[in-house]
Formats: sequence, structure tokens, C-alpha cells
Amino acid sequence: MYRDRIRMPSLMGKVVPPEVAAGLIKDGMTVGMSGFTKSGDAKVLPAILAERAQTEHFKINLLTGASVSDEIDSLLTKAGIIARRMPYMGDPTLRKAINAGEVMYVDQHLSETVELLRAKQLASIDVAIIEAAAITEEGGIVLTTSVGNSASFAIFAEKIIIELNLSQPTELEGLHDIYIPSRRPYREAIPVVAPNSRVGTPFIPVDPSKIAAIVISDRKDNPVKLEKADDETNAIAGHLIDFLKNEVKQGRLGNRLAPLQSGVGAVANAVLRGFTDCPFHDLTMYSEVIQDSVFDLVDSGKLVFASATAFSLTQSCWDRLFADFEKYKRHMVLRPQEISNHPEVIRRLGLIAINTALEADIYGNVNSTHVGGTHMMNGIGGSGDFAGNAYLTTFVTKSVAKGGAISSIVPMVSHVDHPEHDVDLLVTEQGLADLRGLAPRERAKVVIENCVHPTFRDAMRDYYKEAVKRGGHTPHVLEKAFSWHIAFRETGDMRKAFSK
Amino acid sequence: MYRDRIRMPSLMGKVVPPEVAAGLIKDGMTVGMSGFTKSGDAKVLPAILAERAQTEHFKINLLTGASVSDEIDSLLTKAGIIARRMPYMGDPTLRKAINAGEVMYVDQHLSETVELLRAKQLASIDVAIIEAAAITEEGGIVLTTSVGNSASFAIFAEKIIIELNLSQPTELEGLHDIYIPSRRPYREAIPVVAPNSRVGTPFIPVDPSKIAAIVISDRKDNPVKLEKADDETNAIAGHLIDFLKNEVKQGRLGNRLAPLQSGVGAVANAVLRGFTDCPFHDLTMYSEVIQDSVFDLVDSGKLVFASATAFSLTQSCWDRLFADFEKYKRHMVLRPQEISNHPEVIRRLGLIAINTALEADIYGNVNSTHVGGTHMMNGIGGSGDFAGNAYLTTFVTKSVAKGGAISSIVPMVSHVDHPEHDVDLLVTEQGLADLRGLAPRERAKVVIENCVHPTFRDAMRDYYKEAVKRGGHTPHVLEKAFSWHIAFRETGDMRKAFSK
Repeated sequence: MYRDRIRMPSLMGKVVPPEVAAGLIKDGMTVGMSGFTKSGDAKVLPAILAERAQTEHFKINLLTGASVSDEIDSLLTKAGIIARRMPYMGDPTLRKAINAGEVMYVDQHLSETVELLRAKQLASIDVAIIEAAAITEEGGIVLTTSVGNSASFAIFAEKIIIELNLSQPTELEGLHDIYIPSRRPYREAIPVVAPNSRVGTPFIPVDPSKIAAIVISDRKDNPVKLEKADDETNAIAGHLIDFLKNEVKQGRLGNRLAPLQSGVGAVANAVLRGFTDCPFHDLTMYSEVIQDSVFDLVDSGKLVFASATAFSLTQSCWDRLFADFEKYKRHMVLRPQEISNHPEVIRRLGLIAINTALEADIYGNVNSTHVGGTHMMNGIGGSGDFAGNAYLTTFVTKSVAKGGAISSIVPMVSHVDHPEHDVDLLVTEQGLADLRGLAPRERAKVVIENCVHPTFRDAMRDYYKEAVKRGGHTPHVLEKAFSWHIAFRETGDMRKAFSK
Repeated sequence: MYRDRIRMPSLMGKVVPPEVAAGLIKDGMTVGMSGFTKSGDAKVLPAILAERAQTEHFKINLLTGASVSDEIDSLLTKAGIIARRMPYMGDPTLRKAINAGEVMYVDQHLSETVELLRAKQLASIDVAIIEAAAITEEGGIVLTTSVGNSASFAIFAEKIIIELNLSQPTELEGLHDIYIPSRRPYREAIPVVAPNSRVGTPFIPVDPSKIAAIVISDRKDNPVKLEKADDETNAIAGHLIDFLKNEVKQGRLGNRLAPLQSGVGAVANAVLRGFTDCPFHDLTMYSEVIQDSVFDLVDSGKLVFASATAFSLTQSCWDRLFADFEKYKRHMVLRPQEISNHPEVIRRLGLIAINTALEADIYGNVNSTHVGGTHMMNGIGGSGDFAGNAYLTTFVTKSVAKGGAISSIVPMVSHVDHPEHDVDLLVTEQGLADLRGLAPRERAKVVIENCVHPTFRDAMRDYYKEAVKRGGHTPHVLEKAFSWHIAFRETGDMRKAFSK
């Protein structure tokens, strides 16, 4: 039955057992795998490789779109196969190995990985492992539930292994829009001028002779788990929607707003869901992922079109999608992450970007990645692509974490992913800080009064007051800038920094 | 004799004494002035306004392209007129007022100011004061030695005051290419596909009825002073050119390299001059400013075309330009800074970006703006526009400053303008760190061994060793991360942090 899905007869002979395909991967190779937020990832080969590692020592450099299923990164980490990993990950086992210095993780803006490959600034891809729903008459690869970096991986790779996944519906064909920017310096403008622009092909055009092996798979995508919305996430959504209502009132935005971008995760998902019950209409989305909440927005008639590079769905939402795929397909497109996250397109469309901060400081600098300034959480992902180029760059976070022991707003962030220049709005459940057009001293006041949790507010006022005495455009007391972080590291509670 | 330069007869009656024109500017207004790196700035009105402040209390928000002549910012600061200033400045008097919290300075990416104005995210421009070389038959404004933000200021402003400068040669007409992106969400691609693309008009198209006053000026642009190249700047240039030669050898670049961008100042100027004696040829430049060294490159036949938003020249170089203007004009274009610095174009052209760091850290994070993490030096300028989007982002700095009391490479930068994700190369006179594709722990080793001054190297190794013991993707000892800065603040010498 896989025969219907391989429409180029000459490729039929490439179907091999997984072990044979895995044999193409040798020690020291750079491997590009499909997969973005667990969707459309290679599901068969990783397990085979991990097994092989029990009897053979080898290491690979592993590139993906973004996160893949935990079991994949986890399995490969435990097997000791990963020498180098980029551009994003989300698995606890791998995270531990990265923070121990055992795996060299290169944290990258998600739009940049294939640009670096194209310019030969990274080691070239030896083998691409790409999950596909079908292969066309001309040998084109029809992707499944994510595009990610798969198109460029396949185009750059010396050899391609296809995981033909029979559990992925054939209706996926036509959902993808594969457009690859030409090599510089003779590049033309990327012709995307609206979220629903279609500018490429519905499959990856590759030289079919590069397809070295096809393995048959029937494993479904792993669903994501999503924390439920709570009072805090709802309050964050409420503040942001109130702000946007006022922007409409002030004439800065119309009721269609601007194309929305929203990061992955519970807070961002809750914020998006907040749009189902609002006066805005004919919304569009130009984002990295299509999350559960997008389906609510489509069904409520609020959202007319969503562009992304992948789905990121809970099980019930996967069921919802595939129960009515043709309906949803009319409202959606999946693009290469280079295009979904491209600075050129983001700036042109003028996005409202909403991403989650790990911590932020009183001047609006944002840390998206490093716990305590040192330990990698997941990676910067697409947040930098969007923050640097959006019309309205918003970061959201609950004001406290770990039962109140951590303030997400600190005197100085322990790691900077997004400098204050790029941050327009900061929102916690406490309130919203509109930082547009403000100097640092003005920013500090707004952030302290609007965003900091009451438990930390007085201490933050004290810090700022002492800093201002020293003067400067961006006042700080360097000896105390990290005192909250240090207290947390030593005592497990930031509050110990000021309440002895 | 100014009559030849006002080619629309109905505007002749708008010529007024400067005091009359200055009367249009009222307390609380937002004023947009022409000027970028001292070139093409308004030269008459500022002095009149400062004089008026002696008898009348008023304040304005002042926007420019970038830095203007020190005498202007200095005069207006001393007169107490500036409430708010953006997006860049370079004057010591103003700097002092900013660091004392007396002037609210909003440090912005130079490509973004007019985008924010267009989206009404900043207070709108009441009056634009624009230096012009001529006014066309249709009332279009022909600019002088910079474009900067002048075009959008004039287009957005309620009223325009022209400073018609008779000392600026009329041959300037035709040098400028004024292209303004359309308002979002219906924006098309910016059609610049090469440094020499001409896509706009040679003048600013404005409704002539907005031209409220014309004042006649004959003051020349203030020349810049440039520190001489020395052994260190020459060594930096040498390291970078050796690196580029190797890139050509490795097949990553051709002998035409890629369009060059170079920041303002002595180090960047020395680096550019280094290209006059190299195997590369048919070079192009897509940059913010045309500096002295560009003329050497043009005359040596190395550089075929330079695109920028302004000249930034010493007196001898101004003389050189105007002695042979028609020749140089064939090799140059001046664009709005929104276009010279636009992420879309920077990414498309694939620039080699070379900018100066104030300090950098072992992981490649760069501080361009804040001395000791608190005191503003000049502003981020265009460095963020270029760093985030270039093909090869390079930061250069001498490894030590203040006679060796300051290490420009520190354990952790005290302020982050450019996160490590955006930094490919770090170059000091000690050597070059190629950070591409490296994880933080690998970056640290290369930066410490290649870039840190020998006086600080052992102490840096010790810091890093202690940090690694604590673990993490980006190891740090937060209690000691700023110890060098703190020692400098307390003793005037960073070395006191480790040599008691």
C-alpha cells in the first residue's frame, strides 16, 4: 500500500529495511533530520541508530528544524551519539548533557541555520532524513506535518533517506509552500507579501538520484502536552487585548490588527485563545507554529488565514484537524522555517509578535534561554527572528515562578537574548508595560510599577533608587545586579536577597 | 543667487529671516532635523533657537538622522531646550546630560525611527528642518551631504523649514536615491537588489504647501576628526584580511567578496583602508557612511560602488570629493537610512559587516553603547541593523584601553547590544576569533586564546575554569562576572580585580 505514495516508479527499488538505511550514516557525519515541535520528525531511524551505538562507537552532528520528540533526542543522547546539536532542542536528557558540556549545542535563530549551510559556514549535510507523506512523479518530496528545515536539508544533502509515513494522511499534499531563496549575491526579493501568499511548490524539488533509501513508517506524531490556562495566563491575555483595543481606538491599528505571531507554549496559547472573544475580526497569522488555539480562532470565524512552518498540537487537536482536514487546509499553509521566520517578510508584513520571556529586567532586556544566566533551557528558537523585526514586539511571562521564589522580572537579566531596543511591550499578570519611545529611566518606572509582583516590588524600587544615585543612562549597581540570582542559587529563594 | 536654487517660483516668497522661521517652533513640539555624522545637518536654526531660550522657556523633542555637529547638540543642551532626543548622538555635553537623567535619550536602531513614526508609535513630527541644495520645479527637496531620516521627516511633518545651503554644490543633485517603503500591511518588497540599484527619486517628493519657510545658509559641513591608524588598528585590519583571503581559498567567497559595511570611526576606517592593498577586486559597499578610506578604495580601483546614507569626512577628504565630484558621483549613491540599514536589504545582499565593539565577552556578546554597563557613550547606531542580518558579522576592538587599565574583552559584558547569536567574528590586534558554528564553551576558548590581551589572559582563563566547574551551557560565576568592571569603577584599573 505504500506503492501508491511513491509515484516515481524508478524509486520503488529504494525501499529498504531501516537497518540498511541507517547504514548510510557513518561516524563524524552531519545529519539533517526533519521535525519541528515534534511534528513530522523522523521516527524510525533514530531508534535504529541508538541500537547500533550499543555495538559500534560513532558520533554525528545532528541538525533538525526545531525540537523533535523527546524520545528521539533522549534516545540519541543516552546512546552517546550526538557530538553537536543545532538549532533548537527541548528534551530534558539532552538539556542535561548540554549543560554538562558533553554535547556542543549551537543555539541559533531558526531562520538562520539553512542560510549558514547555504553559505558553507557550517559543515555540509551528509545525509538528510526526511519524513514524507508521498513522493511525486518527478521525485519531489511531499512533507507531512512540518516543513522546518527539511527542504534545504534535502536540497543540500549528499544523500537523502525518506521515512515514508503511511499514518500521515495523503491530504497533506498541497498544504506546503516550498520556496527557497536563491544564493547570494544575486538574490531577488522573497515574494511573500501576505500570510496567504503562495510562492513556491507543494513539494521539495530534489534530484531523485540523491534519494538513497526509503523506509516505511506508520508511527504517528507525538502530541504535545499543554499546561492549562489559569488565572495568570488569562490575566496576561486580558492586558494584551485591552492594549490592542486601545491601539484600535487611537487609530494605530484597525480591527483586523496586523498579522499575529505567537510563540510556542501555554502562555502564548492562552493569549491567542483570548482573541476568540474580542472585537477584532478577519485576523491573520504569520507565525512559526499552528497551536491548538488557532483552531478555536478558525472555528469562531475570527482568523481567516494562518501561515506557519509546523503544527504543534495536543492529541485532541490532531484528531480535530484530521477529522475535517479539507476545511482547515483552506485556511493554512506550512512554509520552510527560513521563510516563516524571515526578517525580510516579518518586517514587511508588520507583525504583532508575542513570545514568552524566561526573565526580563527593568529596562526591558529579555532572557529567553538561560536559567540563572548559565543553564540552557530550550534555545532562542524564533523569538529573535520575530523580536528584531516585528511591528510590535511583545514578551509575556508570569511575574513569579517556583511558588514565588523566583521573580521573572529582575534588576538585570542574567543573559540577554533580546536587547531592550527590540522590546516594545512587557506583560505579566500584574499588568502591561508599554515601552515604546521611552528612555531607560522611564522604562524602569513602568516595568516596576506595572509588571513586578508585589512581593518583589519594594525591593526593586530600592535597587532602582540606589542605581539612580550612581547616575547613567541605564542606572545599575553592578555589585548587586545579580544578587537575586545569587540568592536563588545559594538558598533556592530570590527573596533571601533582600529579606534577611 | 539663491534664486537659481528655488526652481518652483511660488516658493520664492517663503524665504524669510531665520528668526521668523524659528518662530514656527513652539514649546512641546517634536522637531525632525536633517543630519547624519555631521553631514547635511541644519546649521542656522539651532543657534537661533538656543538664543531664543535665553528669554523664553521652551523644550522640544529632537530627532535627527544620527549625530549632528557637536556645536548643535551642545548648544541646544546648554540652552536646556532638549526634552527628548533620538535616535543617536555623539556630543560630550549632551552625553553628560543624558547620563545625568536630564535629557530622555531613546537609543534606537537607525533603520527603525521612521518606521516607528510611520506606525504612529512615536509622537508625530511637527516641524522638519531640512538642509537642501535646491528645490525642484515640482517643489521636491534636493538634499545635500546626507539623507538620513530627512525624507520621512519631511513627508511626515506638518510644516517644513528648508535651510537652503549655498555652500553645498548644486552637483549634489542626482546623488540621492529617495525610496520610501509603503505603509504596512500592503507593503511590497523593497526593490534594491544590489548596492548600485536606483529605485527612487533624486529628491524628496513633498506637498510644496507644507514648506512653511526657507532660510538661506552658507555654512559648510563640519569635518570629522579621525584618529590616525596605528600598529593596533593595522594589526586588526591584517587579521581580518588574512581571514577573508582564507575564505576565498576555501571557496566560501569569491575575490569580489560580498558587499562591505563598515561602522564609523578610526578602527573601521583603518580596516577599510587595508583593502586598498589586497588581492580582492571589484568590491562594493552597502553601508551607512562613506568615510575617507572609501576614496582610497575608489581611486585604487578596488571599489566599484558605494551605497550609504551620508558622507563622514575629514576636511582634506571633503576637498578631495568636491575637487572631482562628477568622477566620485558615478561610484556612489546616498539613500534614506531606513534603506541603507534595512534588514530586508542587508540579508538579501549578504553583507560583510564590520563594526566597533566597546567591549565584548568570552562568549561573543557585544556591548556597543554603555561604559561600565550604565553610562551611554554614543548609541547603538546601525550596528544592530547590520549585526542581526549580515552574512558575516564582525566586531573589532583594541584588546585594551586607557593605557591597559581596561580590557575590552571581559568575562561578561556589562550591557548587551548584540547577543552572541549575531556575532561571527571578533577581532583585536591580538588575533581573530572565528565563532561560526561554535558552542559557547568552544567560543570561550577561541576568544580567550586569540583576542584577550596577555595582561588579562591568565585571569580570564582562571575565571573560565572556575565557571566551568559550576557547569552550564554558558558557564559563569555570577558573583565575579562584573568584578573587573567593579574594580575599574573603584580603583580606575580592571587589573586590580585579580592582582592585589
